[in-house]
Amino acid sequence: MKTFLDCLPCMLSQALRAGRIATTDEKTIKELLDSVGAMIKDIPLENTPPETGELIYREVSKITGVADPYKKIKEENIKEALALYPELKETIRKSDNKLLTAIRIAIAGNVIDFGVGKDFNIAEDIKKALYQDFGILHFNEFVEHLEKAKTILYLGDNAGESVFDKILIEELKKPVTYVVRNIPVINDVTYEDAVASGIDEVAEIISSGSSAPAVIPKLCSDDFLERFKSADIIISKGQGNYEGLSNVDRPIFFLLKAKCHVIANDLEVKENDIILKGINLKETII
Amino acid sequence: MKTFLDCLPCMLSQALRAGRIATTDEKTIKELLDSVGAMIKDIPLENTPPETGELIYREVSKITGVADPYKKIKEENIKEALALYPELKETIRKSDNKLLTAIRIAIAGNVIDFGVGKDFNIAEDIKKALYQDFGILHFNEFVEHLEKAKTILYLGDNAGESVFDKILIEELKKPVTYVVRNIPVINDVTYEDAVASGIDEVAEIISSGSSAPAVIPKLCSDDFLERFKSADIIISKGQGNYEGLSNVDRPIFFLLKAKCHVIANDLEVKENDIILKGINLKETII
Repeated sequence: MKTFLDCLPCMLSQALRAGRIATTDEKTIKELLDSVGAMIKDIPLENTPPETGELIYREVSKITGVADPYKKIKEENIKEALALYPELKETIRKSDNKLLTAIRIAIAGNVIDFGVGKDFNIAEDIKKALYQDFGILHFNEFVEHLEKAKTILYLGDNAGESVFDKILIEELKKPVTYVVRNIPVINDVTYEDAVASGIDEVAEIISSGSSAPAVIPKLCSDDFLERFKSADIIISKGQGNYEGLSNVDRPIFFLLKAKCHVIANDLEVKENDIILKGINLKETII
Repeated sequence: MKTFLDCLPCMLSQALRAGRIATTDEKTIKELLDSVGAMIKDIPLENTPPETGELIYREVSKITGVADPYKKIKEENIKEALALYPELKETIRKSDNKLLTAIRIAIAGNVIDFGVGKDFNIAEDIKKALYQDFGILHFNEFVEHLEKAKTILYLGDNAGESVFDKILIEELKKPVTYVVRNIPVINDVTYEDAVASGIDEVAEIISSGSSAPAVIPKLCSDDFLERFKSADIIISKGQGNYEGLSNVDRPIFFLLKAKCHVIANDLEVKENDIILKGINLKETII
């Protein structure tokens, strides 16, 4: 997805939020906003938003001197999500359509996002997502491709959300490789967060090789790209990965909640809709 | 009121909204955002927000080549407000407390604001404001000072809202001087808009001598400042005027709706609360 004009003020808001989490010193945060404001002229609208996001969050760390402002918040979110795990497993057990329920839970976990400036309540948002109508639901296609797939690449998004990813991975009943960010950016899931979420019990964990808050192929490592090109299907979680991959020619199922009006417009859905959208699917039916 | 850190991303959003009203050319709007982004480093937090607002809206006109982007919108809002005038006069006629009802209507008119990025529905918002609880209500003080006042300076805010100001001025039963912006800025009320709203039938109209989207004394003309210093009471409409005058040592009654969280925090009220707040009142009781 390209960068829309609406993304530019949003990026300044993101810098402000991240700056406030890293420091309480108003002068430092003002200096950060001065710097990010001046960066706007160097942001081409042709770039995907997370490419710019990477530069901005790097600036947050540089100016505040805090490499990982969301570290503590991520730990708390993982803890809160783990506390919900047994109850959610029970919900799956009682469900008539375990896979679809697991997909709903995995999408619901996508509310844990500090890139978008919305408050969230994990437990309540999950309850809503269990009954909410989908804005796009390519479930039959998902089932069909899942059955045929030998290799599944699952692109993680946020820490905490990763616990709900574990629940979906358990229902896929296939070998899964789970992809994390190479180093901390916003509250995105890293190797350490994935292990803390129990992903190592259900999947192989690899890094995208990139510190951008999304999988953007041209920024990823060769090792990752080999897996990305050879996977039978790719499951992509969240807005950032959608922004980075919506124009990429691979069979991808996007699972996300459309948390801002720019993404909602791009997907032609309503804001806050939940989405299971497959792209470039034909080539995978071998 | 000082500029808060939250005001900075908001200013970029305002530039985007105004840019889109002035032109549909994405490149021009990107150029505008580049320029406003680069201006952030020159905004001291000690300035009031409308001081910066003036620079930004001037940049909108300079880069888009459109001197008054909101001209047509202002005409439409005045027309819509005038259509509601007879019904609102009837509401006043039936009211047990005509002055307080007129105050409510004048505050309700304050929803017509393109500086704040919120959608509004004039007719519906007025209905709500007729019954909404006040966040701050210095009504007794207002009545007391109004009775003693010989000269009332009424600082207008937005075009369209001016029609509702007329309704309040009619209930003040005193000679009133109505203050407009010197030249168009956002959708703020100018001389032409005030006349189109019928203000000339109930008050003398003068200019603040400034093109800022608020009365900021240091930017106003000497002629205006003479009236500002000698008025027995000043009635100030809207957020911009509050931002410009909240720290000024004159007897002022602020009538506004707290439409953003920064203003709400500064006033210690909830967002969307309606406000009648008097400051520096003792000196006026002569």
